[in-house]
Amino acid sequence: MPKKIVENKEKIPKVRKVTDGAIRNKARTKKKLLDAVGEVLRTKGYTGLSIRNIVETAGVDRRLIYLYFGGVDELIEAYLNEKDYWMSQISPKTEAIVAKAEQFGQKEITAILHTMYEEVSKSADLQKILCWEISEPQARLRELADNREELGKQLFKLTDSDFSGTDVNLRAVLALQIAGIYYLILHAQSNGSTFCEIDINTPKGKKAIKLALEKVMELVYKEAKK
Amino acid sequence: MPKKIVENKEKIPKVRKVTDGAIRNKARTKKKLLDAVGEVLRTKGYTGLSIRNIVETAGVDRRLIYLYFGGVDELIEAYLNEKDYWMSQISPKTEAIVAKAEQFGQKEITAILHTMYEEVSKSADLQKILCWEISEPQARLRELADNREELGKQLFKLTDSDFSGTDVNLRAVLALQIAGIYYLILHAQSNGSTFCEIDINTPKGKKAIKLALEKVMELVYKEAKK
Repeated sequence: MPKKIVENKEKIPKVRKVTDGAIRNKARTKKKLLDAVGEVLRTKGYTGLSIRNIVETAGVDRRLIYLYFGGVDELIEAYLNEKDYWMSQISPKTEAIVAKAEQFGQKEITAILHTMYEEVSKSADLQKILCWEISEPQARLRELADNREELGKQLFKLTDSDFSGTDVNLRAVLALQIAGIYYLILHAQSNGSTFCEIDINTPKGKKAIKLALEKVMELVYKEAKK
Repeated sequence: MPKKIVENKEKIPKVRKVTDGAIRNKARTKKKLLDAVGEVLRTKGYTGLSIRNIVETAGVDRRLIYLYFGGVDELIEAYLNEKDYWMSQISPKTEAIVAKAEQFGQKEITAILHTMYEEVSKSADLQKILCWEISEPQARLRELADNREELGKQLFKLTDSDFSGTDVNLRAVLALQIAGIYYLILHAQSNGSTFCEIDINTPKGKKAIKLALEKVMELVYKEAKK
């Protein structure tokens, strides 16, 4: 606000000032509130996502949540959509893998699993969302899960010809591997102990899991080609 | 103590009655408090485990937590030890599988994975504990995880001769499958949606996951024997 006002000082200060400043203020406040949701989620967990905690962290008036988002649920929804790592991170990377490949098979699926492992490992926000998703029923989270399913659906279609008529259910095998990636990372983050004697907080453990994913993909594709 | 007193019925009746009642009362109150922990965990999640919620659910005086357990942390620890499904459910079943078998290999590991799937599926308490374990660092939960690791260690040793010199890391493969079982069940419980187009809330989806576990074990053992 202040900067614009200074620039247009002489001409139509009043009207310009108010509109411009209000828009910038609104954007800034919205960002503060969205950031506060992430901060509260990381520090207090999803059960800490009260209006009180959010506005205290953001340092803004609680009425602004209603003014700019319509309510705290809508604010959380906006945060989740912004942080939807599937759509913002994994989806583009997956599409890049698919676009580069001549076919969609073992190599591409392994690359996607490794990408998921890396992306989930490095994002604390994303881990909190995955943990939240299995902690309580939540319509917004259900929506995110459904979005992911939609993307998966298209990719699975590309694999059907390789597995039809075999006794390998690629969807079920991948469900276990992907869910396994999620749980192992969450477990290592909060609990810290080993899991089946593998410590994924060490480079050695991490590598073992990535190689295991590769091996399982190699074996199911080999089995399907028999 | 009560037994002794009964034997001496005729002599000191008054004392007996009071003591007996007190002991029975103590056992009953302890059970009420332990049950209340489970109830609060199921209905409000681990963040709801406050003294207030526990005593309200149990319907007993809060001082009894201190008197009988020494504090709320110790009460929760007692609950967790009692509900440690690994030790109380899966461990004896695993031992039975091992005892019956002439060797420890593909068939036995598959049976253990299926047992884990069944046991985790049917126990809401256990699901809450697994969810809690990945939600926040907690010394008690770490201990439970360590107990499980100890049991796993002994079993993994039995598999080493089959996999040494191969490029299959059985521990890493099983880490993914077991973690996958946990996450899929928790996800289906709270979120309800499909995961990789598999709905394990249906018999068909559940069967697909059990068959996938069987297939993965078949393939890694076949690969190791090559």
